[in-house]
Parts: sequence; C-alpha cells; structure tokens
Amino acid sequence: MTQPAISRVLAPVVTPFDQQLEVDVNRLISHCQWLIDNNVGLAVFGTNSEANSMSANEKVDVLNRLHDAGLPPSQMMPGTGCCSIDDTVLLTRTSVSLGCTGVLMLPPFYYKNVSDEGLFRHFSEVVERVADDRLRVYLYHIPPIAQVGISLDLIDRLLDAYPKTFAGIKDSSGDWNNTEAMLKRFASRGFEIFSGAETFLLDNCRGGGAGCISATANVHPGPIATLAENWQSDDAVQQQQRLNDIRSAFEGYVMIPSLKAAIAAYSDDDEWIRVRPPLVELDESQRQHLVTTLVERSFEMPGLI
Amino acid sequence: MTQPAISRVLAPVVTPFDQQLEVDVNRLISHCQWLIDNNVGLAVFGTNSEANSMSANEKVDVLNRLHDAGLPPSQMMPGTGCCSIDDTVLLTRTSVSLGCTGVLMLPPFYYKNVSDEGLFRHFSEVVERVADDRLRVYLYHIPPIAQVGISLDLIDRLLDAYPKTFAGIKDSSGDWNNTEAMLKRFASRGFEIFSGAETFLLDNCRGGGAGCISATANVHPGPIATLAENWQSDDAVQQQQRLNDIRSAFEGYVMIPSLKAAIAAYSDDDEWIRVRPPLVELDESQRQHLVTTLVERSFEMPGLI
Repeated sequence: MTQPAISRVLAPVVTPFDQQLEVDVNRLISHCQWLIDNNVGLAVFGTNSEANSMSANEKVDVLNRLHDAGLPPSQMMPGTGCCSIDDTVLLTRTSVSLGCTGVLMLPPFYYKNVSDEGLFRHFSEVVERVADDRLRVYLYHIPPIAQVGISLDLIDRLLDAYPKTFAGIKDSSGDWNNTEAMLKRFASRGFEIFSGAETFLLDNCRGGGAGCISATANVHPGPIATLAENWQSDDAVQQQQRLNDIRSAFEGYVMIPSLKAAIAAYSDDDEWIRVRPPLVELDESQRQHLVTTLVERSFEMPGLI
Repeated sequence: MTQPAISRVLAPVVTPFDQQLEVDVNRLISHCQWLIDNNVGLAVFGTNSEANSMSANEKVDVLNRLHDAGLPPSQMMPGTGCCSIDDTVLLTRTSVSLGCTGVLMLPPFYYKNVSDEGLFRHFSEVVERVADDRLRVYLYHIPPIAQVGISLDLIDRLLDAYPKTFAGIKDSSGDWNNTEAMLKRFASRGFEIFSGAETFLLDNCRGGGAGCISATANVHPGPIATLAENWQSDDAVQQQQRLNDIRSAFEGYVMIPSLKAAIAAYSDDDEWIRVRPPLVELDESQRQHLVTTLVERSFEMPGLI
C-alpha cells in the first residue's frame, strides 16, 4: 500500500449554509474539527461540498477562515479545479501558501470532448503559473459529473513532465477496472491513488492504493479511517461489509442532501438541512425514512458537535 | 415572427487571446465593431467566446472595456450564467448597469441530474438578488455541452413567476422538434426564441421565432442577418441553402478553433489562431484545408478589419 503524504481517508467536507445561503463558517469549522478528531482529512471544496456552487473569491475567503481557526493544513486537500485557469491558479496558490499538503484538481469541465493535449496544456499552465515547489496536485477523475475525465495517458504525460508535482488522483469513475489499471500503471511510481468511495477501500489498499476520498466519510469517518489503517487485519472483510451497509443507506437519495439530513438529525440541528440551488433538500418523509434506516442499522455519529 | 428587443441575429463573439493567453481587448473591439457593421448583435461571453475558460472578474473587466470603447449596449447580450449564484449575479448586475438589452444565462452546469425545482430556485435567487426591473434574461439551453438543460415546464414556471424578466431563450439543442415545441407553447406570450444555429433560421422565423444566435455569425454575419430580415422574400430558401453550405465547411472541425482559423486567414493575422486550454488550435494542414474549402465556396468576409 502506498503511504500517502496526507490522511488515508479524506472527506469532501459538506458545507453548511445559513438562511441567506452564505457559508456558515462556524458550523463548517465544527464539522471539520469532528472529522479531524476521527482521523479523517479535509478535502474541502469537493463535489460534495457544493464547491461548484461557490465562487472562487468565496472559497478563498472560507479557506483563510478555516486556516485562521487552527485547522491543520497538513490534513487539508482543498478542491481548486475550476473552469478557468485564473480561478484555478488563485485557489491553488492560496492553498499552497497556507501550507495545505495537496490540492484536488478537477479538469476544466465546461467544454466537452476535449483532447488530452488540451488538458495537458491546461494543467501545465496552472503549474507554471503557480510556480511553487511545494505544490502537490491530486487529479480528480469524476466522469459521471464532470463529464471530462483524466485518461491514463494524460497521467503518464503529466508525471513525465512534472514528477514531483502530480502526486496522485481521486478516481470517482465508480469503475474498479479503471482504478485497478491506475494502480498497475502508476502506484510503483509513488503516485497515490484514492478511490472515490469507501466501497473500494479494501480492494484499493490491497492493490497498492493510498486510501479513499469519500462523501460518506462526512458521516462515518471513524470506521472508514480504521479500515484504511487496518486493512491487513483479520476482520477487514467484515469491516468493509459494515462500511458498505451504511453507505448503501445513503445511495437511495441524492448524496449531498442526504448527508446533510443525517448530520442534521444526529446533531439535532436543522440548520444543516439547507443546500444551495440547483440542489434541493430531502423532504421530511425522505429524511425520516433515511434516519429510520440508519437507526435500524445501528448507525452512530459519536461525538458529533 | 416575434420582433425581438435586440438584433435578430447575434454572434457569440469569439475572443482573441495574446501570447500570455490574456484577452486581447483591442482585437476583440475591432471584431465586435465589424459584427455590428454587419447588423449582427454581440452575445459576448457565449460558449464560442471561450467564456467558460474565463473568470467572472476577467469578464467584468472586459465588458467594461467594450462599453468604454463605445460598442452599443443596446446590441449586447452578454453570457452571464456561471456555476455559482455569486458569479452569475456579479456578471448580470454589471451587464444590466451598463445598459445591455439582455443577458444570456446558462443554468449552473456542474451538478448533473438536478431537478426543475432546483433550477427554478437558482434562477429565482439570481433575479431576486439582481433586483433590477431592467433585467431581461434569455435562457441558454445547450444540453450537448452544459448537459443540464432547460425544460419546457421550467420555462413555463419562470414565465409565470417573472413574466417581464424571462424574455426568451437560445435553443442550442440541435433538435428542431424541441425548438418547434417552444415556439408552439411560448411564442404567443412574446417569448423570443432564437435557434442556436442559422441552419434553423428560416424554419424558426416561419414558426414565429426571433432569429438565431450562432457561432458562424462570427464569420458570415451579413448574409445571416439578411435572411433574418428578409425571411419572407422569394429567395429565402436559396439564401438558407447558401448559409448551410458555408456553415458545413466549419462543421468538420472543432468549431471555436475553426472560426478563429478563418478569421486569421481572411484578416491575414495569425494572432487570431490562438485558443485557451483545454481547447487546441487547428494544425496548419487543417487550417489550409478549411480555407481551401471556403475559397472554393466563394466565401468572403468583406470589410474584415
């Protein structure tokens, strides 16, 4: 297994919003602290953070406030990939200057059917403009949502050109064959491969991967982190089954509002229910059904603030 | 035919970039002036403007500079729809305050499979925040690229809630059946329906539509504008065939670099060839082949600066 430079498990941290739909930074800090206390790193501004419903300026401001609150940059991997080079560079520079261990970088995702050559030029331009030896980029492959993906040949080319900069990838293709192909081709070069869900965590660890960056690490952090640390233990398969059992309770709903509904219910704080458009919160019956399912499965969120 | 509040034909104005990949504002102003001189309005910051490779701050700056150069805001419909409400509001407010007749608004396009309810909330939030009676929104339906589309039911709901604000739509679905369904359902309410390519211009005018907003209006503005004004003339079908013949020369290539290649060739100015990543310019043999085809078809760009 590759020993990553950061936590083996990270959460794309869900973002609470207030009544004006502004980021509720105090609630966000509390949630980040709870994740850190449960041995999970902070992939703030991920897909599940509703980060692509936030402006670059807003993300810079929030990131500075998380840093000021004392959250450890060594455990942070902010999402910085935007459609424009300018926004991507702004967020990436901010992350590096605050000491974040890495950044999670989407490809530019508006224009479709773009070539590897065009994506290579985009990532190169970002790296050249940031111009900081501390930069560690984790590529973000999530074709179901971004539609624009990261091919194996593109990784190869980026690693050849910038071997110290391109540190790893999050594979949210949902396709184990793709993750396995990445492991076989790149793990031996120290490239850290994170699966995009804990469903593949054990397989990924066994194949030489680094861990996972998963939506449900927002609600089930401790047990996911435990498996990532103890994947060679006798009960690893049972641990994986338990993780799958909990995750499947969320998969009948749109993921982001269901994570927020669980946090709201388990912290008795309805402020957490809110999402930004174009997303819509779960309705009351959906929330009740989700919570009933979780309780039936003896799901807990110990220590949730 | 609906008489639109703006030109019947608009170009999503291609954006020249300098060696540092910054917007070459002087060349952009010249191109805008040439389009205006050819009776074509300015849908700056459209898909074909590479606008989604530009940051919101950058677009605000460029828009101000176009205005300062004396280009007529009455003929401008800037693209303002970004993934985040903040960026969309910033660009929309700027456009309205400069006196632009309308704005062309993409839905937020990162999150996929979102509901009409979520999109309604997004557009409502933008309208409420801009809070200016002068705002005229043209929705932008381009499912092949944005993946997130605008349904007929969503249009209906927006028109009911904000009848004066939602002024029309650009239908870039490439599906005439969809444009026809929009015409039948909404043209009688004064909703201005623009086809996303001049290929459907005559059909759209005959069906009660407003005109077209088309990539190739960047290179073939005069003849497209002429058909839009004279769609009831005896030679309208022949005019449409000529437009289709020219457009088809571009359709064998990626549209944006091919438009720029044509402008570069016809103005003898290679600075126009450049595109921003993730796009890639046409190679020299593609450019030669495109120009040869255009010359064979007696294509001209009279008065190009």
